[in-house]
Order: sequence, then structure tokens, then C-alpha cells
Amino acid sequence: MKKKELRIGLIGCGFMGRTHSNAYNRVKNFFPDLEYQPKLQAVCSRNEEKVKSFADQWGYASYETDWKTLISRDDIDAVDICTPNNMHAEIAIAAAKAGKMVLCEKPIARNLEEAQLMVDEIAKANVRNTVWYNYRRLPAVTLAKKIVDSGKLGKIFHYRSNFLQDWTINENLPQGGRAFWRMDAEAAGSGVTGDLLAHCIDTAMWLNGGIMDVSAMTETFVKQRVHEDTGKLQDVKIDDACIFHCHFENGSLGLFESSRYARGHKALFTLEINGEKGSLKWDLHDLNRLEYFDNSDESIIRGWRSIHVTDGDQPYMDKWWVPGLSIGYEHSFVHQAADFLKSLESNDVCAPTFKDALETQKVCESVIDSAVDKEWKNTNVEWT
Amino acid sequence: MKKKELRIGLIGCGFMGRTHSNAYNRVKNFFPDLEYQPKLQAVCSRNEEKVKSFADQWGYASYETDWKTLISRDDIDAVDICTPNNMHAEIAIAAAKAGKMVLCEKPIARNLEEAQLMVDEIAKANVRNTVWYNYRRLPAVTLAKKIVDSGKLGKIFHYRSNFLQDWTINENLPQGGRAFWRMDAEAAGSGVTGDLLAHCIDTAMWLNGGIMDVSAMTETFVKQRVHEDTGKLQDVKIDDACIFHCHFENGSLGLFESSRYARGHKALFTLEINGEKGSLKWDLHDLNRLEYFDNSDESIIRGWRSIHVTDGDQPYMDKWWVPGLSIGYEHSFVHQAADFLKSLESNDVCAPTFKDALETQKVCESVIDSAVDKEWKNTNVEWT
Amino acid sequence: MKKKELRIGLIGCGFMGRTHSNAYNRVKNFFPDLEYQPKLQAVCSRNEEKVKSFADQWGYASYETDWKTLISRDDIDAVDICTPNNMHAEIAIAAAKAGKMVLCEKPIARNLEEAQLMVDEIAKANVRNTVWYNYRRLPAVTLAKKIVDSGKLGKIFHYRSNFLQDWTINENLPQGGRAFWRMDAEAAGSGVTGDLLAHCIDTAMWLNGGIMDVSAMTETFVKQRVHEDTGKLQDVKIDDACIFHCHFENGSLGLFESSRYARGHKALFTLEINGEKGSLKWDLHDLNRLEYFDNSDESIIRGWRSIHVTDGDQPYMDKWWVPGLSIGYEHSFVHQAADFLKSLESNDVCAPTFKDALETQKVCESVIDSAVDKEWKNTNVEWT
Amino acid sequence: MKKKELRIGLIGCGFMGRTHSNAYNRVKNFFPDLEYQPKLQAVCSRNEEKVKSFADQWGYASYETDWKTLISRDDIDAVDICTPNNMHAEIAIAAAKAGKMVLCEKPIARNLEEAQLMVDEIAKANVRNTVWYNYRRLPAVTLAKKIVDSGKLGKIFHYRSNFLQDWTINENLPQGGRAFWRMDAEAAGSGVTGDLLAHCIDTAMWLNGGIMDVSAMTETFVKQRVHEDTGKLQDVKIDDACIFHCHFENGSLGLFESSRYARGHKALFTLEINGEKGSLKWDLHDLNRLEYFDNSDESIIRGWRSIHVTDGDQPYMDKWWVPGLSIGYEHSFVHQAADFLKSLESNDVCAPTFKDALETQKVCESVIDSAVDKEWKNTNVEWT
Repeated sequence: MKKKELRIGLIGCGFMGRTHSNAYNRVKNFFPDLEYQPKLQAVCSRNEEKVKSFADQWGYASYETDWKTLISRDDIDAVDICTPNNMHAEIAIAAAKAGKMVLCEKPIARNLEEAQLMVDEIAKANVRNTVWYNYRRLPAVTLAKKIVDSGKLGKIFHYRSNFLQDWTINENLPQGGRAFWRMDAEAAGSGVTGDLLAHCIDTAMWLNGGIMDVSAMTETFVKQRVHEDTGKLQDVKIDDACIFHCHFENGSLGLFESSRYARGHKALFTLEINGEKGSLKWDLHDLNRLEYFDNSDESIIRGWRSIHVTDGDQPYMDKWWVPGLSIGYEHSFVHQAADFLKSLESNDVCAPTFKDALETQKVCESVIDSAVDKEWKNTNVEWT
Repeated sequence: MKKKELRIGLIGCGFMGRTHSNAYNRVKNFFPDLEYQPKLQAVCSRNEEKVKSFADQWGYASYETDWKTLISRDDIDAVDICTPNNMHAEIAIAAAKAGKMVLCEKPIARNLEEAQLMVDEIAKANVRNTVWYNYRRLPAVTLAKKIVDSGKLGKIFHYRSNFLQDWTINENLPQGGRAFWRMDAEAAGSGVTGDLLAHCIDTAMWLNGGIMDVSAMTETFVKQRVHEDTGKLQDVKIDDACIFHCHFENGSLGLFESSRYARGHKALFTLEINGEKGSLKWDLHDLNRLEYFDNSDESIIRGWRSIHVTDGDQPYMDKWWVPGLSIGYEHSFVHQAADFLKSLESNDVCAPTFKDALETQKVCESVIDSAVDKEWKNTNVEWT
Repeated sequence: MKKKELRIGLIGCGFMGRTHSNAYNRVKNFFPDLEYQPKLQAVCSRNEEKVKSFADQWGYASYETDWKTLISRDDIDAVDICTPNNMHAEIAIAAAKAGKMVLCEKPIARNLEEAQLMVDEIAKANVRNTVWYNYRRLPAVTLAKKIVDSGKLGKIFHYRSNFLQDWTINENLPQGGRAFWRMDAEAAGSGVTGDLLAHCIDTAMWLNGGIMDVSAMTETFVKQRVHEDTGKLQDVKIDDACIFHCHFENGSLGLFESSRYARGHKALFTLEINGEKGSLKWDLHDLNRLEYFDNSDESIIRGWRSIHVTDGDQPYMDKWWVPGLSIGYEHSFVHQAADFLKSLESNDVCAPTFKDALETQKVCESVIDSAVDKEWKNTNVEWT
Repeated sequence: MKKKELRIGLIGCGFMGRTHSNAYNRVKNFFPDLEYQPKLQAVCSRNEEKVKSFADQWGYASYETDWKTLISRDDIDAVDICTPNNMHAEIAIAAAKAGKMVLCEKPIARNLEEAQLMVDEIAKANVRNTVWYNYRRLPAVTLAKKIVDSGKLGKIFHYRSNFLQDWTINENLPQGGRAFWRMDAEAAGSGVTGDLLAHCIDTAMWLNGGIMDVSAMTETFVKQRVHEDTGKLQDVKIDDACIFHCHFENGSLGLFESSRYARGHKALFTLEINGEKGSLKWDLHDLNRLEYFDNSDESIIRGWRSIHVTDGDQPYMDKWWVPGLSIGYEHSFVHQAADFLKSLESNDVCAPTFKDALETQKVCESVIDSAVDKEWKNTNVEWT
């Protein structure tokens, strides 16, 4: 069967530009049966030397240095946004208005206002869209979703999730610029809340439903850092750490924490869900494993099961190797790319959409507000 | 050398009566060099048959059925309180007034008012005292204290601690009576906050200093249970789950959670502390292990160390077996009994004292208040 | 009910003297319902000062310095042998001839010839007896036995077991004398084979049946050490490490290894058994856990279960605390003491008997022979 | 810089054909700085429909159905052999004679005779070559090599390694044919010895030097299986399980085991090495972790370090993502492809060569012989 092409225009050559480019490159090898296959039509970044080299490395047919040019091209079907957060809204809205499909790195925006505008414009333009909350598509996490949806856990009492790192403890790290825009509130919107907790929140609501209200605290441990753009010591305005507890719509209690000051943890995204009949645990450092407790097991031989999610009957794993052979972080992006392509074929949405990501943004905004005002905040989340 | 005797009068024959009695019985075998040795002079419980049998089983020289009689006896040096929480204050105060040393199970009281009164009366009576926050004296936890105090962790950023159980999920469990007084607010004062979080808080402040303010939420998942005394379905007034975050005096952020609805966890007391230079982790299910991350290790071979705390140079372990051979839960009580006896010899206090336990009570009270009022509360803790 | 007394005479005040004495001391507290209770009648060691102090510490009513005197006493019902291995045979045989029950530390003898003689004399005397292969009675190991016997594992394919230590790597450690008799072949018979592998073998045959033939190798890494008795550098004649593979009677393959040169392992006794329908794993460093794989679990949620063996319905655990609260190494001895006392009541044997221990000795002897001759050896084990 | 091309001709479209094809496809993305880049010139398999589809899926420029044709093509620089083992020798020798570089899946041959012939012909032809013992190039294993070579472990006492699977327990699985040639001795040469233990042996000798002698046993649990080619029940001639112990040239003791009947283990390749000063452990199910014990750590805080090998200063990891983000199984092949390309640039050999693989074959052959003859065998390994 002749494949149809989805012509991709990717904007941004940083870390996420690499993960997305890799995803597109692997789809054909591992999901050969898809009706649509991606074509790496163009990549865009302001620095010509860099973007040229990136295009060569990843196999893009062309490059641009102005994203507006890229969006205006007729030979681009889908715009994929991998820029710093402060560019997301403008590009996404322009792309939607140009009738392009829009794929966007998370968080979709720096704040709720931007996010709402994006969602409105995308709705108006009625274009296909998805947001790269990639962790949903690690097989162990997808399996967790299957287990939750099956009812095996029963009524849920608790949900907890962390995302712990330690890379900014060094007080001599700068803020801003190419490498450290995540530490500059102007570029990033927030610190760990948008960067890390947003992942925890997206996965949590996907698995356990809407978060209704939050009580949060944040901290900035290093108060001033040199800014890469100005060369001057400036106040750090992002949150280095953020903790909140909350109620889910289903009555369960939530507990979330994120930090870049948790010494010894590189990228420890964890989640745990406790239900009446069973529980689940997972962490990103051992991403192929899911731990599952089934209370219906015979009591004397009951215990947490360590499931090595690498068998062909487990999510996505029929596409890869044989039982026992691990896959890695980047595969989550491959799966999302494949699922987006499949959604063209099946004419479904590819969740999470911008609308879903807006709900996550509401929680993030409520968290920041709660920390500032030192009081509980309602999120006004509508999760379906 | 002729040993001196400390004549113990123990009140209460439940779970804690057993752990304390065992502790006294083992001191001579494992701490033979102490100047003072406990003598099990009398045990007291209202049910004569039960107390008689208990006295025989544990080697008490006599028994009483009225605690006032026990306190009035001249041949008792120290009163050890293992009753439900609602009896702690009255007994402790009476014992202190009678000039007895007072040892008391935690939490010392149902609320801050009772606790303050106890501390005042004990201060007035100027009697030796200690509270059985036993977990401090598990060797791995004691080693954690040594590491923190050595400065190896540097400035502390984060402290988190859980105590998760699942034994009350069954909605047919009753409240009240001998077996289930912990689920009756009248007898227990609170639910998981006093029963479980109090342990987490005591250990946390011992390791990381005073908790200054808290923001909490609590939940009672099963709203009504039959009361053992009345046979009637009554409102459950204890907290089934409690979550709070807080600031420590040293500027670090704290995160605490406890529940009896965390399916799959039997008695999962965990703690973790993240500092600039290193981190520590521990949990009660593998109580002989301490995990330690030392950031000064060479970078390519750096990782969390799993320390099996069973060597003779590790806390308390010279008293037991040989490297690699585990000890259990009950040993924490043996160590506290030994340390109390040693404090008579050295004329030091045996922490935690009632005064220390009062500070923990302040945090518990603030947590409950914060949950009720849905706002941050100052604890007024004075930790030294 | 009036308790009956079993009057114990214990010989040897070393490490094992302590574990046995503790066991007898704990029985009444934790197994109060037994018809027979131990009475610590006498303890014996050559050094009077030491034995006197030991008697005081552990509550023995009297002491002796000559084991023959102890055996000749009318007020001793049972002789418990905790001496170095080279004394086992003589004492056990004398005790049996004197009509005493005999309890003996493992291995029962230095070699098969001694062991056979002991078994013959005990049979002739027809006295109750047991050998302290204590690890069978750790709850997780006893649970493993229950699972195997239930047929849940199906046909067995593999059994593997290690016992790894690292305490003799230092080449300046001496051999012989009080502290290091285990490194002196004259006193110990063998090195790791009798000291450590004997445990692995006893547990293995208990769980998986007789070992039929063996192919082994041994090594002595440090060839000469100063002898404590002579002060001279002498050849080391024990095995520092021993490895063997074998066939079990049931057709499964066995693999065993022991070493005192396995850096990083303190007392890592492990076992694993793989059957058609399921598997089990356990190790001594986390002795309260048993790992169990049940192949009949639904395939996508199948995994090794980590069972925390601390619930009241798990072996022996109704005697201790509440779910989640660990017990330690020494409890295995308490359980064996209790089971021996119960065997008086039920008039059963208390396995492993000397006869059972003889079978383990056959395997040990075959292993040493195989290593020397560099060929397979039949064990002539008769296991029932 | 203009890249040079290495034109690949790959033979065999099975599991290994996929892993190699993926490796070549990823090199340019992740190792863009290499002077040589692979060009997927042709792929060969007997079934035209299958090979055509494979060529399309993986981006091969052409395909062949006769491997002799492929070898005869002028536009192929390197022949990569991914066929069943019984074809390795003939193809490799023909390719070498045709002056092609030769890359070959392991084990290189079904037996020592074939392997020796291959090595001789390759030496005569003097062509570049490498054998895909891919596990050496998982970052954690490469890091292990660095640690061993640094001398951090000191004198080595023990090496142990397992490779455990459970996929052939079902007695209704057939032997032979496309899917099950690994169970047909004619096609595979041996069972687990060549398939799994060969990996263990290659890694072991790479890390710890030559294996001098072996004592082995093997077992075939299911004696007869239907053969896919004949449809008849035929004797199974492969080994289902294999165990051996051995001496390394450096005086350390080795212990190896492999099975496809170890219920609960999917692909559990493990290794452990114990030295005087330190130890290392690794397993394939958590392939990003290396465990390291450093005996020079301060004694009370000493423990096994769990190293998450995902930092930029750890082997190969500067090519991938950021700290904490795992890679998977397939990356080991990408690394070997990259290293082979680099060897063209640096004019070095890319180990393991056929000569190295011959030494591994010697051990495999000795193992099988030892099991058959039930006696120790010298391997005649020459490892440098």
C-alpha cells in the first residue's frame, strides 16, 4: 500500500527538537503498518549554522531560520513546536491560523492566559493537535492506565507523584540563554511547576481524573543567579521546588512534589496510586517496570509484583524486541508520534490535546497562586 | 559489680505492654554492663485474669488491677504507661506527683492541652522521664542521625516522610473497645496523626530541627463504623489519612503523609532527607538498611549506597550478632530501655523527654487545626 | 496449667552459646502456651571466669567447667552443644550414652566418619535430638517450604543457593584459637563447606529433596596464616571458597557457592528455586521477604511478588508483632527451641535430626572429595 | 566534512537483522561526527516478499535473495551476517575471500572446528571484522570494564554470571524452522551454551581474562519436540540448561549458569565480580544500573552503590539524553556499529574480533565436552 506522508515542520533544535526528530525517524522502522508516515520536510532555528547541521544530522529536507516562513510554506502539514515556552503561544496560534496541524512540547504555555488563548484559536481553526506529555506512552505507564481502567484497583484513596532532580544545586549555574532558559521565568513561565510537575499532573489526571483544589508551597533556594543575556546577577523568579496536596474529583487525596534540589535524584519521576483492591507504583529510573499489588491474591503469598513490561502482549512492546529486553526514554516519543499518525488514519483525537493540556495548566496556575497567597485554590478543572 | 535495680511498674497489657516488657527482659542479656538493671516489679490492667497471665508470661513479680494502687506502692521506682491515649495524662501526672520516674508511650496525649499539663506537672515534680518514640533507636535511624550531625549532608533542602498502612480499609471493622480504640477519637485523640505521623514528626525534628508552620489536609474515608461499646453505628471522628507540608526552622521544606488506606503497605514508615552534599533514605520494611548518597564520590561511580547496618561499629550493633545478621522491630525498644537505664548512670536526660514530645504534639495539633480551618498554622515549636 | 520443665545444660559460651541462650530465654514470653518450658539449669565452658559471667548474663542456675561433669548431672534433661566442631562427636555420644536429649550446633561433625558414629550412638541410645540448622525456621523460609509442598511450583528444574561473606580477605587474620577456630581445619573440619554450605545444603534438601551427585571445586586464597596456638605461620587447610553443581533426586539441577572472599557481602545466604509453574527467591540480608513468581497470574500483570512475611497468618508470625514489623536473625533459634519443646508434647521428632544432618554431611564430604579428586562423586544421600 | 560511506550488505531478516538495521539507521543521528557513515546498500533473505518488505521498512537501497549474489556485488564494502548459526561459516569465509569486511552475529559458529576455519580464512584475507557480542557496549557494562581496568577492585577472587530465561518450558513448542531454529541442534549448534552462555563468557573474559578449564553439566528437560520441517516428534539435541565452574587465568573462580527453564526470568543476564578492594554487579533487566562496592569507603557508611549510568561522563551517554533518562537494549548495537565505524577511522581493530570470538567458542566447546564426558576440560584459551 502506498503510504501517505505527513510533512513535518519542526521549530527548535534543542533537547526536545532531538527527541521529536528521533521519534519521526523511527516510526517507519517500528510502526511500518501505519497508513501515514512522517516526512521531515523542514526544521527551523534562528542560528543558520546550527539548523543546517541539525537538518543534516536528522534528515530534514530543508531548513528555515524564521519560523513565520516555515509556517507559511505550503509543503508543511504539521508544525511541531520545540522552542522555549515563551514562544509556544505565538507560534501555535499562527500555525493554527495557517491551517496547520499543531504539535507542541509541554507545558503549552507560561501561564493560563496564554494557554486559554491557544486553545481558543486552535478550536477556531479546527486543526488536529497534540501536546507531548510523552510519559503517558511509556509501556509501564500505559499498562498502569489499562489496569486502572479495568477497575482492578477499585475505589481510589490516594495518588502521589514526585519529580526530583538535583542539577541546579550549584549556585554558580547561570539563568537564561540557550542552555538555561528553564531557569529564567521570562522564558519558562515557572520553574519546576511547569517543567516537571506538569508531567506529574498530566499523568495523574489521565489516570485518576480531575484535580479540584490545591494547597501548595514553593521555594527558591538560590535567590540570585547571573543572567546569560545581561551578564548580571539577577533575582531568580522561578520556583526551585514545589509541593502541593489536593483533592481529586473521585474523592481521593493527591500529593505532589517536585524539586531540582533533591540530591541524588537525576530525573526521578514517580507515581503511586492506592485503591481499595490494589495499588500501582512506577518510577522513571526503572521505566520498564510497573509494581502492582493485588489484594485479591491469597493472603500468605500476597506482595507487590514487579512487572518487567517488555512482553509482546504489553502496550507497544510487540513493536520492539523480545521479553526481558528493555526500551528507553526516547521510545515514549516514538509511541506518541505513531499514535498521532494513527489518529489521522482513524480520525480520532490524539490525547493529550491542547484542551487537555489547558486543564493541566489550570492546576499549575492554581498551584503557583496557592503558594503565593498561602491558601487553598480551586482549579476549575474540567476533566472528562 | 553489684547491679542496682530499677523497679518497674507497667500499666497496660496490650501491644505496647508486650514490646516494653520484652525490652526490659532483654536488657540484662544484651546490655549486661549497665549499672542499673530493670526489675519487673508489677504490671497493672483492669482485667485480673488477663493481667495475671501477662505477669506470668513476662516475669512480673506481682500485678495490680488499679493503676492508682500501683502508683502508690513504695517498691516501684518507675511507672511505664502503655494504656490507650486517653489515660496517659491522668496516670502520668499522678505518677509524677508520687515522685515516680515516668515512661510513656507516644503520643503523650490526645491533644496539646493535656500534653502541656503533663509537661508542667512533670517539671514541677522534677522526675526522670522519657517517651517511647522508639524508631529513633533502630540502628539505621540512629546512624542517619550521626551522618546528619557530622555535616556530611551539608545544608538541608528537603525532608519527606510517610507512614502508610492498609488495615482499616475494610468498612466492617468496628471502632472502640480493647482492640480498636485507635479508631475511636475519644480514646485516641486523633487517627493517623497521633498514631503514625507523630512518629514521623518526632524523628524528623530530631534529625532536621523544628517544624515552624504547616498546611494540612485530613480525610475520613469510612464515615461511620459500629462502636464496640455501644454496638451502634456511630460517626468516625478520627482522621484515616493526613497529609501536610511545612517549613523547618533551617529553611528546608517538609512533606508528610500518613494513611491507613494505602493498599499494599503494612507499616511503611519512610524518611528521606536531601542536602547540598548528600542524601539519606530509610524505610521500616527493610529496617536494617540505610541508603546514603554522597555527592563527593567520584562522579562516574556515584550512586545511592545501600548500607546494611549490622556491623559492630554501627549504632547498637556491637550488642547483637555478627555482620549481615538482621535485628528486628522490637530491638528499638530494647535500645530505649537500655538508654534510659544508662541515663540514670550518667545523670543525663533520656530523649525524647515529655518536653520533646510536647513539641511533637504541637505539630500534631497544628496539623489537625490546619486541616479543619483549611489554612496554614504556626506551630510555636521550640526545638533545641 | 502447670508447665513441665526441660532442664538444659549448654556447653560452649561463644556466638552460638549466645543465640541458644537467647532462644531459651524468649520461649516463655512468645510461646507461653507450650506444655514444656526450658529451664536454664547449667552452662559449661573451660574458663571459669567467663562461664560464670555468662551464666549470670543469661540466667543459668549453675555452671560447670568440665563438660563431663555437666553430662553426669541428674538435673539435666537435655545437652545443647555449642562448642567448636571438633568437640561435637565426643560430647554428643557421651550425652546420648548418659540418656540425655541432644541438641547440637551444625555441622554435627568435622567429617562423615564422626557423623556416622554419632548417629549410630544416638540411635542406640534412642534419645530425642535435633540439630540447629536454624534458617529453616525463619518465617520466609518456612513459607517457602509451604509453597513448595503445596505443589504451586510444579515440577522443579533449578535450585541455586549461595552463602557469601568477606570477612577473611585480610591476610593478617590468624587461624585457630577462640576467635578463629573456624579457620583451623583441625577444629572446624572444613572451611566454608561445613560452616556455610552446610546451611545451604540442609535447606536445599529440605525444600527440594536429596542431592545425588556433585562436582565441586574449592580454593584457599591465603595459603598461610599465623596460628593462634603456636604463633607460627602455618598452612591454611580449610577451603576459603567452594563451588559445586549437582543433581537432585527429582531431576532438577543444583548450583551452590560459598566464599569468605566475596567483597561486599556480609552474610548473604540466598536461595532460589525454579519450577514449571512458579519460582521462589530469598536472601538473608532481607530475611523477612520472600519473592514468589506465579506463572498462573494473568500474563500482562505477572511479576515477582515481594512478600513481606510479617502477617499473623504467615509462619510463626502470630507470636510476634503486627503486620509490617520485622523480626531478626535470632528469632530462627527461638522458633527451633519452641518447636523442639513442642515435639516433646506431640511426641514427634524435631527435624532436622542427627540423621538428617548426617545426610547433609554426606554431601559436604562428597563436595570436598570431588574438589580434591577433580571428579564427580555420588553422595549416597538417603533423603525422605 | 564530507562523510565517507561504508556500504553494508546484511544477510538475514530475523530478530538480529532488525537490531543491526536499527543500529545502522541510528548512527548518523547520534554519532554525527564519525568520518564513516553506514549506507544500507542491500539486504538478503531467501523469501523475496519478506526481504523486499524488510528493505523498505529499514531503508535498504536494494535486496537480494541469494547471499552469494550479495557478496559478489562490487558496491558492498561490509557483509553483516544475521542468519542462523549453521550459515555463519560458509558466508563469512566467502565474504572474506571476496575481500569484504565481515561482521557476524554470535556465536560465530556451531562448533570449534567451524570457528577455527573462519578465523584462519579471515586472517588469510586480512579483512576487518567484528562479532556482535553487543552487551559489552551497554554503558553500565562498559563502565564495569573501566572500573576493573582502573584497578579499583584489586586482585579478583570471584566471577559469576547467569543468563536465565523461561520461554521454552512449554513442551508443545516445536523445534526448527524459521522461528525455532535456536532449538534445533543442526541449525544452532548448541542450546543455551551458544545462545546465552556465549554472551556471559565473552563479557567475562573481556572483564576478567582467560578461562582456563571448566567442569560442566547440561540438561535437556524436554526430550522430544515436533520438528517444524518434518512435522515429526524428534529428539531434542540442544542443551536446555548448562552450568559450569572454572578457573580464570588470574586465579579467580568462575561460576556460570544458563537456562531456558528458569521460570520468572525473561532475559536475566547477570554478572558479578568480587575483588579484594571492591565488587561489581549488573543485570540486563535493569540495564542502566551498575552496582559497585568500594571497600575503601568509611566503614559505617559503606554499601553497594546503585549507579544509574545515564550521565554525560559515563560511557556513550554524551550521545543520548540527559541524566536519569534511560536507554535500552538496542543501543548496545548502535554503539557497536559506531565503534566499528570509528575503527575504520582510527585504523584499530573493533573488538571482539573473530579471533576473540574463537576463544569464547573454545570455552563453549569445552563446556559441552565436559558435560558429555563428566570431567574437567582444559580450554586452551589464549586471551590477551
